[in-house]
Amino acid sequence: MKEIPKIAIVGTGNVAFHLTHFFIEEGIIPSVFGRNKPTLLAFEKELNVPTNQELSALTLDTLVLLCVSDQAIPEIIDRVPNGVRIAYTSGSTDLRSLPKDRVLGVFYPLQTFSKGVELDAREIPFFIESNDAEFEKELLTLARIISNIVHKASSMDRYHLHLAAVMSNNFVNHLFHLSEKYLQEHQLSFDYLKPLIRETIRKAGFISPSLIQTGPAIRNDHEIIAKHLASLSGSEKEVYAVLTRSIQNTKEKNQDEL
Amino acid sequence: MKEIPKIAIVGTGNVAFHLTHFFIEEGIIPSVFGRNKPTLLAFEKELNVPTNQELSALTLDTLVLLCVSDQAIPEIIDRVPNGVRIAYTSGSTDLRSLPKDRVLGVFYPLQTFSKGVELDAREIPFFIESNDAEFEKELLTLARIISNIVHKASSMDRYHLHLAAVMSNNFVNHLFHLSEKYLQEHQLSFDYLKPLIRETIRKAGFISPSLIQTGPAIRNDHEIIAKHLASLSGSEKEVYAVLTRSIQNTKEKNQDEL
Repeated sequence: MKEIPKIAIVGTGNVAFHLTHFFIEEGIIPSVFGRNKPTLLAFEKELNVPTNQELSALTLDTLVLLCVSDQAIPEIIDRVPNGVRIAYTSGSTDLRSLPKDRVLGVFYPLQTFSKGVELDAREIPFFIESNDAEFEKELLTLARIISNIVHKASSMDRYHLHLAAVMSNNFVNHLFHLSEKYLQEHQLSFDYLKPLIRETIRKAGFISPSLIQTGPAIRNDHEIIAKHLASLSGSEKEVYAVLTRSIQNTKEKNQDEL
Repeated sequence: MKEIPKIAIVGTGNVAFHLTHFFIEEGIIPSVFGRNKPTLLAFEKELNVPTNQELSALTLDTLVLLCVSDQAIPEIIDRVPNGVRIAYTSGSTDLRSLPKDRVLGVFYPLQTFSKGVELDAREIPFFIESNDAEFEKELLTLARIISNIVHKASSMDRYHLHLAAVMSNNFVNHLFHLSEKYLQEHQLSFDYLKPLIRETIRKAGFISPSLIQTGPAIRNDHEIIAKHLASLSGSEKEVYAVLTRSIQNTKEKNQDEL
C-alpha cells in the first residue's frame, strides 16, 4: 500500500471543517491553514488539529486541499510555495482557468455542509480531476479513504453537477423554508409536512420525478391555482407562479411527445 | 368498541386506490363506486373488492369516502341518496361551500399518491372536519384505524396545509425533474445527486430550513449565478432566476432583523 501524504486543509469554513473531521475519523490528522487566528483556535479546540497562519510554511511532501471560495482560489494558489500539490473543492471553477505550470487538481464533494450537522463521508460522492496523471491517482486514492463513491469528472461535468445540485438542494431547501414560513404565518406546524417530504424524497430514489408529478399545476386545476396565488404575495407568489408555469410547460412537452 | 360502518369509496383514482388498500390491510373491505366499468374491473382484479356503478345503491348504513376531483364533489353529493354520510378527501374544498342540509365531512390525507408506489398509511397525517359532531367522531375513529397521525382541522387550516404541500412536494418534485433533465442533457446520471437529496431531506427533519440555506444565491455569488443562468434557457432559466431572487430576498430580510 502506498503511503498517505501529509494533508493540509486551507480554509476554515464548513467544507474545511467537515473534510478535516472525515480525515481524523480515518486516523489522518491534517494541519489546518487560515488567516483568522480565532477561527483556527476553534479548529484546534474542536478537532484537536495543528493549525498555521503561514502558507509559506507548506512543504513539498504535503498535499493541499483548498476549501475556499471560488474567487479566492487563484490568489491562494499563488501564495502556496511552488511545487506543492494543490486540489480545490469548488464545483464551478474550471481547472483550465488556473495556472498550467502548477500541479493542480479537484477534490469536489457533491454535498451540502452545515455547521453542527454530522455527515457520513462514505455516502458523499467525490469528483476528482487533475492536470497531472500521478496527482489524479493520488487524489482518487485519498478520496477512497473517506468515501465509497469516488468518480473522475471533467470540469464541465462537475459544473453541470453543481448547477443541478443548486436546483435539487439549494432551491428545494428554500421551498421548505417558504412552506415553513407560510405555515407559521397561519399558526400551523411545519411538522405536519414532514411525512410528505420524506415520501417525496423516498420516491425520487427509485422513480423518475417526471413520472410522479402530482398537484394542481399538472392537473391544470385553474381554480385552485388562482386561489393559491391570491393567498400569496411577493417572492412566494412569484415562485408559485413560475413553478406552476414550468410544470405546465413540462406537461405540454410530454403530451407533444406522445 | 363501536362497530365499524360499511365503507364505500367513490372514485377510482390514486387516492381511491390507496385508501381502499389501507382499509383492506386492516381487514375492512370497502365497496368501490365509479362510472367507468373497465377501471372498476381493475379494482376488482387488483384489490378483490366489490364494485358498483350506481350511486343510488348506497344505503344509510354506509359511510362514503369521496375521492374525486374538487370540481366533481358538489355534483356527486347531489347524486348520493339523502341521509348517507359523505366525507371527501380534497385539500382545498371548503366544507362551508357545500349543502348545509347534508351530513358532510372531510377525510384529508396529507400525502402524495402515485400508482404502483406503496405507502405506509400509519405515517400519513389525516385531517378531519365535519358539520356534524357525531360524524366527526366517527371519521376520527375511522382515520385512527389506518393512521397514527390524525388531527381535526378547519377548512382554512386544511387549505393552508394543502398550499404548503404544493410547495414542499409538487414544486420540489418538479425541481428534481428539472435537475434530472438537465443532467440527462449533459449525459450525466441523476443518481449522482441522490446522496445530496437524501441529506437535504434528512436535515429538514430536524433543523429549520432557514438556518441551513447554502449555495450561490445566499452567498450572493454573482459570478456563478450569471454562469448558471447563461447555461439555462426557457422555464429552467426563469425558475433559476426567480428562486435565486427569492433566496436573496430572504437573506436581506434576515439581515434586517438582526
